Amino acid sequence: MNLLLLEPDDLISEDRAVLRGRRLRHLHEVHRAEDGDTLRVGLLGGGMGQGQLLSLDEQQAELSFSLTSAPPAKLPLTLILALPRPKMLRRVLQTVAAMGVPRIVLVNSVRVEKSFWQTPFLTPEAIREQLILGLEQARDTVLPDVSLEKRFKPFVEDRLPAMAAGTLGLTGHPGDYPACPRALSEPVTLAIGPEGGWIPYEVEKLAEAGLNPVQLGERILRVEVAVAALLARLF
Amino acid sequence: MNLLLLEPDDLISEDRAVLRGRRLRHLHEVHRAEDGDTLRVGLLGGGMGQGQLLSLDEQQAELSFSLTSAPPAKLPLTLILALPRPKMLRRVLQTVAAMGVPRIVLVNSVRVEKSFWQTPFLTPEAIREQLILGLEQARDTVLPDVSLEKRFKPFVEDRLPAMAAGTLGLTGHPGDYPACPRALSEPVTLAIGPEGGWIPYEVEKLAEAGLNPVQLGERILRVEVAVAALLARLF
Repeated sequence: MNLLLLEPDDLISEDRAVLRGRRLRHLHEVHRAEDGDTLRVGLLGGGMGQGQLLSLDEQQAELSFSLTSAPPAKLPLTLILALPRPKMLRRVLQTVAAMGVPRIVLVNSVRVEKSFWQTPFLTPEAIREQLILGLEQARDTVLPDVSLEKRFKPFVEDRLPAMAAGTLGLTGHPGDYPACPRALSEPVTLAIGPEGGWIPYEVEKLAEAGLNPVQLGERILRVEVAVAALLARLF
Repeated sequence: MNLLLLEPDDLISEDRAVLRGRRLRHLHEVHRAEDGDTLRVGLLGGGMGQGQLLSLDEQQAELSFSLTSAPPAKLPLTLILALPRPKMLRRVLQTVAAMGVPRIVLVNSVRVEKSFWQTPFLTPEAIREQLILGLEQARDTVLPDVSLEKRFKPFVEDRLPAMAAGTLGLTGHPGDYPACPRALSEPVTLAIGPEGGWIPYEVEKLAEAGLNPVQLGERILRVEVAVAALLARLF
């Protein structure tokens, strides 16, 4: 937790907040915080600045804070991600929130097991929890927008073309394709496949929607690593 | 397991092998393999090619194989990594093996907890196990060399300068430093800090050894994500 992320419900006045639960435990157990300590704070959806602990016990912490700077810029990116297996999903959500992806679409693919759509980690609360962890890690305050598309074809045919319009559309896919471009400043729509990759039909449908395949080399990377590697290379 | 990685002990002749244990279970449970199936194989430290399952039961699998291609090139990189916490260590070892890092030095830092050096995941067998998983993931056959340096100062003063000689030396560190360079083809020695980062003294000692600080932006990334992002950007 490199940023103590306050939520509107934590505020007791415009510059005071009270914390309980996970963040309070973290202050005790990891930060070993004491009255008077200063720490970096941010307000969810708002600015970032400094906080000072006014009191701290086993029940709650009270702090005063002032917000003096804006959160870091997001990447100009929409990420279309084949739904990863549940354990991987949680880490990937943290990673993409930490790296500054503003918009994520979790989509079906032939190689996504049907059971993955049943995981409790896909509830809005569970998704939000992982995104918050990513924001706290990276020091950001703005939640990415996450949407679910359980059917590949209607999404790719009906909604993706408009979403990708005016952006550079790319599909990360191993094979005999151009190398993934570097250091872009233009907006990008990037599709990343499941473990085992997109099937050829899916690569073709994504290309029809304007997302052309690019590759990162012959090594096959785990989804979480591929996401970090592609984003670091693109921007 | 995108590559069935054979070890010399598995061979019963120059083109036949017998498998038991983890890889056999994986063939049954994940690949749902049957007699006659062909699969990608590699020989640890050797070439890659095709294998064919001759027989397969609960006890063992026998296959014939031929090795026709070389493993993918490694990155021209020595990675100096502050020892991560045990759970992260395992994933990072897989990641760096998968991404093609040939040489890794796990080093102490003020922000590495002493207990991390006691983990059973640091035994040669445990390290090797994670590296193998990374090679199987990425389709490579050549184990990286991993060494441990439990004392920062003697390593950085006495051994690192020779190790970094003739390479571009870099320390990944957030702050007011030049941006991490991109798309290098020259050899690099890269140091990546612990959660919480190198302390200023360590950044200074690394610079004296020839590793100058570079940054990836204001977002603080988990070590595993920072490793993937830095490697993808550098090469």
